[in-house]
Amino acid sequence: MKNSNETKIVGEAGKQEIIITREFEAPRELVFKAYTDPELLKQWLGPRGYQMQVEKFDARSGGEYRYIHVGKNGEEYAFRGVFHEINAPERAIQTFEFEGAKGHVSLETARFETLPDNRTRVTTLSVFQSIADRDMMLRSNMESGVTEGHERLDELFEQGLVN
Amino acid sequence: MKNSNETKIVGEAGKQEIIITREFEAPRELVFKAYTDPELLKQWLGPRGYQMQVEKFDARSGGEYRYIHVGKNGEEYAFRGVFHEINAPERAIQTFEFEGAKGHVSLETARFETLPDNRTRVTTLSVFQSIADRDMMLRSNMESGVTEGHERLDELFEQGLVN
Repeated sequence: MKNSNETKIVGEAGKQEIIITREFEAPRELVFKAYTDPELLKQWLGPRGYQMQVEKFDARSGGEYRYIHVGKNGEEYAFRGVFHEINAPERAIQTFEFEGAKGHVSLETARFETLPDNRTRVTTLSVFQSIADRDMMLRSNMESGVTEGHERLDELFEQGLVN
Repeated sequence: MKNSNETKIVGEAGKQEIIITREFEAPRELVFKAYTDPELLKQWLGPRGYQMQVEKFDARSGGEYRYIHVGKNGEEYAFRGVFHEINAPERAIQTFEFEGAKGHVSLETARFETLPDNRTRVTTLSVFQSIADRDMMLRSNMESGVTEGHERLDELFEQGLVN
């Protein structure tokens, strides 16, 4: 995509949260679907160059998920959590844990807003158990991975692969 | 109990968390059980004068819970969440939502530490989606309810009802 929308990642000093905002050139129902359908999710979530294996993704209130990002040299990064609420197409609330840092868990609230011209804004709030945990996440190179993931999702929309 | 242990509730200004610390005159396995067995939990959680109805309490990683506190005049307060991790007898991580304020969800991490003389310290960290949500919780009279609940749990231990 030539003029991709900006991924804004804000981690205010002294707070234990990160807020990520991104607009997409697609209607809310499809954006929500891309975030909650594992067959779509594994085509865009995370940086390029990784293969995403979804072991479990039961996207309903009370469901669980677990997936693994596998790098080119076979290195694995596993993530898991539970869905507190899946309220299509408005809101998804879930826990998130990188299994390499067990016990360090965050709570993610994603809100999907309809904008004019069939566009959508997604705002994801992540709250952490401490400022130190939040800072660890900010230092983990998540910024490029998140941004690249959003660009990959743009491409799915452009190619008409989400419907 | 004549000399009950103190329930410490700390909500530091400008932070979106509450930390509750309490010691109990019982070994860690039994304290953990009292926190995660619904038959025990409904005998102590919350203030006196309420009846606790447990609709669901599947205390395992990936399980769900829902319970209702019913007051003397029949008023009902329902709560629900999911268990991210149940790691007996050390740690429990779960989401928490008062259904009267839907979408306002916190993440609770309870740590159970063994102290000398078969005593136990429980430290519960709750992180909220915002400082406003955290402040709403602090203003909700939760302090007396939490403290009274802990005193009721002391009584269960004294009467040998947790084993």
